[in-house]
Amino acid sequence: MDESKGLALALEEAQIGYREGGIPIGAALVAADGRVLGRGRNMRVQNDNPILHGETSCLQNAGRLPSSAYQGSTMFTTLSPCDMCTGACILYGISRVVIGENKTFLGGEAYLKQRGVEVVVLDSSECRELMEKFIVEKPDVWNEDIGV
Amino acid sequence: MDESKGLALALEEAQIGYREGGIPIGAALVAADGRVLGRGRNMRVQNDNPILHGETSCLQNAGRLPSSAYQGSTMFTTLSPCDMCTGACILYGISRVVIGENKTFLGGEAYLKQRGVEVVVLDSSECRELMEKFIVEKPDVWNEDIGV
Ligand SMILES: [Ca+2]
Ligand SMILES: [Ca+2]
Ligand SMILES: [Zn+2]
Ligand SMILES: [Zn+2]
Repeated sequence: MDESKGLALALEEAQIGYREGGIPIGAALVAADGRVLGRGRNMRVQNDNPILHGETSCLQNAGRLPSSAYQGSTMFTTLSPCDMCTGACILYGISRVVIGENKTFLGGEAYLKQRGVEVVVLDSSECRELMEKFIVEKPDVWNEDIGV
Repeated sequence: MDESKGLALALEEAQIGYREGGIPIGAALVAADGRVLGRGRNMRVQNDNPILHGETSCLQNAGRLPSSAYQGSTMFTTLSPCDMCTGACILYGISRVVIGENKTFLGGEAYLKQRGVEVVVLDSSECRELMEKFIVEKPDVWNEDIGV
């Protein structure tokens, strides 16, 4: 799948999350053949859940899959993945992580590369502006989400 | 909390999981002051959920917490943590990870140490024997859980 098309799915999730009053980070997992395996968004606020980040929420929504389903897949995410989501992508052998932006938060990109995952940063101003707006509005919720 | 007492909570979760037909890995998060913040077990089979490992399930059950609650805390887990759970412990600044055994699976222990987390391996034969039994009984489910 085209990188900007995949990111658009993730951004749509982030925008839904923002409208719900949640942390606006979204993700979409796309298989090697272009099929969308799952989509998800950060649900800390909506579900009172500290492990449902964009990427983990997406993996949860994709459901149980054999390891072959993740081979060649791409995780699109609006924001640079935190350590937990970095580890989740490594666990399942996701091949590529396409990131909307890493200016508001820089996560485990170096470690992903070190573990053999391809990393692409698209530097999307839409993703960045949405996060910047949220961080100004709800800094405490954001800090809680990244363990600060 | 005493290491064997904390591990006993995690093992109890693993045993419940086994009786439910699930993957027998359990965890307990204990605060610096000894209070049990949460307990959990792998719920892949029970909930059809690929992100509920012992440790992440435990973090989910502990609920939303300020970062100060994790300071000085210990994650007790029956099995060496996978990359996702390793990352989850790092994200929340958990201070110590006490592991039942790492013979049936060796996870992110080196990376935890590299990131400043104390790691203790208790080499529990009860934890190991439970996992060995499960892996022989349901090798496919186990491989799915670790992305193999
Ligand atoms: Ca794999
Ligand atoms: Ca912290
Ligand atoms: Zn994350
Ligand atoms: Zn795990």
